[in-house]
Amino acid sequence: MSDMTTTITRTPTGSEAAAFRRGSGRSVDDRVLDQLHTWWRTANYLSVGQIYLLDNPLLRRPLTRDDVKPRLLGHWGTTPGLNFVYAHLNRVIQERDLDTLYVTGPGHGGPGMVANAYLDGTYSEVYPGISQTEDGVRKLFRQFSFPGGIPSHAAPETPGSIHEGGELGYALSHAYGAAFDNPGLLVAAVVGDGEAETGPLATSWHSNKFMDPLHDGVVLPILHLNGYKIANPTVLARIPEDELLALMRGYGHTPYVVSGGFDGEDPRAVHARMAATLDRVLDHIADIKEQAGAGTLDGRPAWPMIILRTPKGWTCPPEIDGKPAEGNWRAHQVPLANARDTEEHLHVLEGWLRSYRPEELFDDAGAPVALATALAPEGDRRMSANPVANGGLLKRDLVLPNFRDHAVEVPTHGGSVNESTRVLGEWLAEVVRLNPDSFRIFGPDETASNRLSAVLEVTDKQWDAEYLPSDEHLARAGRVMEMLSEHQCQGWLEGYLLTGRHGLFTSYEAFIHIVDSMLNQHAKWLKVSKTIPWRRPIASLNYLLSSHVWRQDHNGLSHQDPGFIDHVVNKKPDVVRVYLPFDANTLLSTYDHCLRSVDYVNVVVAGKQPTFNWLSMDEAIAHMTRGLGIFEWAGNELPGEEPDVVLACAGDVPTLETLAAVSILQDEVPDLRVRVVNVVDLMRLVSEGEHPHGLSDAEYDAVFTTDKPVVFAYHGYPWLIHRLTYRRHGHANLHVRGYKEEGTTTTPFDMVMLNDMDRFHLVIDVLDRVPGLGSRYAGLRQRMQDARVAARAYTRAHGEDAPDVADWTWTDGDTATHDATSVRSANVGVGAAAAASAATGGDNE
Amino acid sequence: MSDMTTTITRTPTGSEAAAFRRGSGRSVDDRVLDQLHTWWRTANYLSVGQIYLLDNPLLRRPLTRDDVKPRLLGHWGTTPGLNFVYAHLNRVIQERDLDTLYVTGPGHGGPGMVANAYLDGTYSEVYPGISQTEDGVRKLFRQFSFPGGIPSHAAPETPGSIHEGGELGYALSHAYGAAFDNPGLLVAAVVGDGEAETGPLATSWHSNKFMDPLHDGVVLPILHLNGYKIANPTVLARIPEDELLALMRGYGHTPYVVSGGFDGEDPRAVHARMAATLDRVLDHIADIKEQAGAGTLDGRPAWPMIILRTPKGWTCPPEIDGKPAEGNWRAHQVPLANARDTEEHLHVLEGWLRSYRPEELFDDAGAPVALATALAPEGDRRMSANPVANGGLLKRDLVLPNFRDHAVEVPTHGGSVNESTRVLGEWLAEVVRLNPDSFRIFGPDETASNRLSAVLEVTDKQWDAEYLPSDEHLARAGRVMEMLSEHQCQGWLEGYLLTGRHGLFTSYEAFIHIVDSMLNQHAKWLKVSKTIPWRRPIASLNYLLSSHVWRQDHNGLSHQDPGFIDHVVNKKPDVVRVYLPFDANTLLSTYDHCLRSVDYVNVVVAGKQPTFNWLSMDEAIAHMTRGLGIFEWAGNELPGEEPDVVLACAGDVPTLETLAAVSILQDEVPDLRVRVVNVVDLMRLVSEGEHPHGLSDAEYDAVFTTDKPVVFAYHGYPWLIHRLTYRRHGHANLHVRGYKEEGTTTTPFDMVMLNDMDRFHLVIDVLDRVPGLGSRYAGLRQRMQDARVAARAYTRAHGEDAPDVADWTWTDGDTATHDATSVRSANVGVGAAAAASAATGGDNE
Repeated sequence: MSDMTTTITRTPTGSEAAAFRRGSGRSVDDRVLDQLHTWWRTANYLSVGQIYLLDNPLLRRPLTRDDVKPRLLGHWGTTPGLNFVYAHLNRVIQERDLDTLYVTGPGHGGPGMVANAYLDGTYSEVYPGISQTEDGVRKLFRQFSFPGGIPSHAAPETPGSIHEGGELGYALSHAYGAAFDNPGLLVAAVVGDGEAETGPLATSWHSNKFMDPLHDGVVLPILHLNGYKIANPTVLARIPEDELLALMRGYGHTPYVVSGGFDGEDPRAVHARMAATLDRVLDHIADIKEQAGAGTLDGRPAWPMIILRTPKGWTCPPEIDGKPAEGNWRAHQVPLANARDTEEHLHVLEGWLRSYRPEELFDDAGAPVALATALAPEGDRRMSANPVANGGLLKRDLVLPNFRDHAVEVPTHGGSVNESTRVLGEWLAEVVRLNPDSFRIFGPDETASNRLSAVLEVTDKQWDAEYLPSDEHLARAGRVMEMLSEHQCQGWLEGYLLTGRHGLFTSYEAFIHIVDSMLNQHAKWLKVSKTIPWRRPIASLNYLLSSHVWRQDHNGLSHQDPGFIDHVVNKKPDVVRVYLPFDANTLLSTYDHCLRSVDYVNVVVAGKQPTFNWLSMDEAIAHMTRGLGIFEWAGNELPGEEPDVVLACAGDVPTLETLAAVSILQDEVPDLRVRVVNVVDLMRLVSEGEHPHGLSDAEYDAVFTTDKPVVFAYHGYPWLIHRLTYRRHGHANLHVRGYKEEGTTTTPFDMVMLNDMDRFHLVIDVLDRVPGLGSRYAGLRQRMQDARVAARAYTRAHGEDAPDVADWTWTDGDTATHDATSVRSANVGVGAAAAASAATGGDNE
Repeated sequence: MSDMTTTITRTPTGSEAAAFRRGSGRSVDDRVLDQLHTWWRTANYLSVGQIYLLDNPLLRRPLTRDDVKPRLLGHWGTTPGLNFVYAHLNRVIQERDLDTLYVTGPGHGGPGMVANAYLDGTYSEVYPGISQTEDGVRKLFRQFSFPGGIPSHAAPETPGSIHEGGELGYALSHAYGAAFDNPGLLVAAVVGDGEAETGPLATSWHSNKFMDPLHDGVVLPILHLNGYKIANPTVLARIPEDELLALMRGYGHTPYVVSGGFDGEDPRAVHARMAATLDRVLDHIADIKEQAGAGTLDGRPAWPMIILRTPKGWTCPPEIDGKPAEGNWRAHQVPLANARDTEEHLHVLEGWLRSYRPEELFDDAGAPVALATALAPEGDRRMSANPVANGGLLKRDLVLPNFRDHAVEVPTHGGSVNESTRVLGEWLAEVVRLNPDSFRIFGPDETASNRLSAVLEVTDKQWDAEYLPSDEHLARAGRVMEMLSEHQCQGWLEGYLLTGRHGLFTSYEAFIHIVDSMLNQHAKWLKVSKTIPWRRPIASLNYLLSSHVWRQDHNGLSHQDPGFIDHVVNKKPDVVRVYLPFDANTLLSTYDHCLRSVDYVNVVVAGKQPTFNWLSMDEAIAHMTRGLGIFEWAGNELPGEEPDVVLACAGDVPTLETLAAVSILQDEVPDLRVRVVNVVDLMRLVSEGEHPHGLSDAEYDAVFTTDKPVVFAYHGYPWLIHRLTYRRHGHANLHVRGYKEEGTTTTPFDMVMLNDMDRFHLVIDVLDRVPGLGSRYAGLRQRMQDARVAARAYTRAHGEDAPDVADWTWTDGDTATHDATSVRSANVGVGAAAAASAATGGDNE
């Protein structure tokens, strides 16, 4: 495989206006129709060949059973349509010098994508072993969906593709994500009519209300109605045409319809209609772009889209074994599934292959003839070679402001209080300012709710629908993208990252599960891309989950679920990272790291509520660099000796409760030697052989000891900590408190108590686990139980946490002064700060 | 709390035609307008009171700071709209004797739902402590979003609700699910304009193509445009009216628009318009239903829907602190967030509350006056008391055919081969036949692909869009629901179950993650419902995941993810079950159990590919009853002695590979005492204190031993087995093989080799773990390595598994005859059977 960077550079599209020009106005002549039809025939032949043939690739001898693959895998049904569109786009790219990305919703039409990349020459450039010779065609066919070869779907291995498409629904959101900030780019996005039934696709049509006609590119949706899914008709193919047109107009589009190929219609007639329609559509786009450039656009344009109706599996045999094939759901996958079993079936296959007249399509050496490739654009104008589809080639590092400049003052540990995400928001505002065309923030409606509002001081929320005078922070162009669809946010961001830009997605921890499956697909894409030399690293996919499980006072049980971390950790370790920063400075340091990273999925869970600042910036950086470490200032172990107990914590609320527990222990059990460990990079817990961030066993043992009790307060489901550490020494001594599915509450401490992760219960856990302590401190144990009962009773009576809980503060230094039931007047308690924060009205969610 | 069963019975709706009758044709008079407006004012007052008041509920003295809750939680913005619709539905229910279920997409409008249930009397019936007295109102207010009280959203605690609605997107799919097979039921479904932006909601409008106007009920969508989300305008409120109408027509609806309440318009005028529109809409519905009954419907009806535009937070103060409140996003949650902090704010709140004139709404005792409740229907015609919303009340057990009658012959263990799901399909066909109006099968497009096609011999796929002559198994009425949207399938099924019926959802294992978040919400609903005496158990939510991770030959990496099991296991243990049946008889036995169960989520993973039948039906029932057990016929341990090693397995492919490994071991290491354990009910592994299905430690030890090596071949991610067993004795000896994110392959055995879960590697695992064996059998170890290399090389050369692998069979009895590299001619190998199956063409996916 060659390195695409050495052969392909991006041809500039020039000014935005110049990128989209009107066509010649001439209709296509017979010569061009020949070119279109020949490209299409050749691509179809190459597609069928991939599905069926092991050998005899150009049919230069009669087909035999041994020429056919024993296991027939792949999807034919959508492929001729994808090839058809590809051919026609080639023509207009040549004529108008268009910079075009091809997004295929029906990614399972993999053979077509490979065939087109082969025809335009890209395939042989990136995979020199697959040359344009008969031997190259043989290898091209054999590798398809074959052990050790390439997948049957469009995949990272496929030049020109930015997504896999096996899981349907994201074609348009990926397309729009690619178009943002690419004003000269045309993204032609084929939507299958099966895919169109999915929820994510159904709402993604509304992306046009979030496009800026001036600064963003153009998405041209092509709704390809071939009428069938696996075994059923599709909804949009079976509603009256007026309903379908109304639907597309309702989505804000101007629909153009091309229909043909049915009842044996000559494909050349369909080519002529498609070419004429595409010319009208591109002229329409050029007009809109021109008006946008001139500032004469009157409101949101009704962008064109194409409805293309062609038969499913177009050009395969009309009937096989007496049952309809072409134009029927039976053509979805492998229409002739048993090609090797009888001579008759073998003849059907041979007849099908020969119907494309391969002898006219390839020269003696096996290379496609000139007529077959006449439509191929030059260089990176070829859709399979467009560097936009290999975004890492175009990615520039972000200009990042020094996050240290945004550090909060931490006079003593816990000696000040901030809303961490509000601090982060100020830094992010600078990131936005410094990277005006390569960084966006996506979220369902939570930028303000998550206290990132500083960002809106330097940019707006992009919006191309109606405005009212009372609107705030909405504009045609802006860096913040808010639509109440996690699918859209994720899909847009993926498309934006895959084409070489940067961003983050902020959402509720519980509802980020909505995109579990999308995360799967993206993580798999990253995993495979890392093994493909010509795929360049892209910016990481960064989550910021700020409305987290422990602070769902407004929303209760339905909003409590920390399992996204578990879901992510199931992915290949070298593409996932999970961070649990616990205060403003650690959050800043974490996010600086995330925005510099590539090819990861970074999950950052960090509360938006006021909380103590535990670490100065220098301490935060040192802690983040280690990923986990001992809070020496919080423990009281003696130099050179192991502690009696380790209190570990991960997450903001667990850290708070752990330190509160430590303060009680140091008051009440002053001779107990306590070590406090905080884990901010969860993957550090894993053994080093299993994750790149994993600690060595020696390092782990040095922190956690091998035989002392460890009481671990964890943000999420407790068993994840067990899972991550089960190969570690001392695992039997590890006792984890975390979230269990126990029920709703409406005050934060109630919630913590319900899960036995509160300070009082952590003290009890220590008493119960350090040998001999339980009997010596039976009275303390009882007082801790009483404190819990009292705290709960207070919430039931007053509707808020008891002051002794809410206003607890940490004091550095003299441990003897710790008193769990008195307010430390030296510092500001979190409770008071929360009340002050609520008064700002920024707490809507 | 009283038991709803004792107070509420369902009033029959009579014949389908009679259920929807045309109205009187008279417009509403002033008296009715008074009733509408007074209900609405009262419901609004009760809603605001819940959000704000701790005491002084009827404002019978001036409001003081202590009357106001210290923490203000809840969502006002959507609430007046929900109350408005509720009042108007009451009127038409009374007039037309309608059987009506109210589904609220904006479930966070919880105070409104509670207020209406209180007003119509239902609330005090199910919660007698909340009486219709001043003290009752005080308690009603205080409990709302208060520690120990009720959640801020509609919830299981809310009478009349079938869903929580905190996670938006599922209102319409739940509504349609409720309407299926309820021909006399009107489901009024409010869709918020925020919710309308979600993907699942955007596609759920198309549910009308899957409704049978004759045998199903009617869904009346009410798109409530209040214009704003948390901090943004909504898309559908900001597109031109003609686009919005086109969109609704494109979705196949007849839209009716009601708009009002803006710029201080008198609400009575809006009441008049809404009443008139609702009458037209219900007459339209009555006409459609009449035509359906008469058989005169011409194609799919364009069912009416209502677009209702009212101000967000309607009737709250127009401005608060100089910023717009009513009609603005600021009214989303608590418009006056700091009501206690100043006298001025307290006065704003008091003025707002008094604007409803509570002194006119409640009598001296504190009960709502007659005018306020005049619109309440009687008994179970009240929407909050409709037993459809407490589906367990209506649930009848399924009539289940004897699954033993569908048993496959198993002459010897592994002595026959079947596609398990095809066998299940024959039994399910009987289930369908015997339960013609209470059982449905839902799936994205996979009933045939998953080989349940026998079902289509007795029923059809329900479809109310256009038909073509070539269509098969489509009909206006049918028990199979196929739309390419996992969200829709899940939402429909949830709605169907929540209203007292039964069903199952069949899908791809990898893509069921699409509904992770929906599963969360449903599981939480079940968990809480179990604690509410008046909520009756509903049928379990049953999954059948047949295109599983190990058999993605067609699709590769993107279709490989067994993590749904992990996700489900994170839920509260008493609502989840995971089954891994490994052959036809165990699958039959499993599904019989699942369809009899209530209040669970049952995840059944069972392959559709041909595989050996390992157990006779008697053995299968015994094994399923235990949930896990020793395959005595497969091991060679001596009576009264523990084995040298335990080979455990869970899942169909792991079971096959484990038995193949055992056959090698028995041939090659005949003195090794092997025990084979199979786990079919995954929850049996958990300690009995943690899951109702958990084995006691003594039972676990008796099966797995406490100190022998256990080599466990598991269907999913291996760490789940560690997690489930980490408290067990002998956990340190447990070695799990399972799926890791390693990459795509295209033959089944390649896939198991890639994950080191193949027979040869399991043998190596045993050699490496039984003390002394590795050195004694170094030669065997090398041969196993060589066998793997050879097997992989064969796939690379031929594109299919090597015959010695594919055609391996098990032979009971004489262990000396086992030979891993020869074909057992006595039995049919899986490879041959798979080839035969492929030849049937039933393998499309």
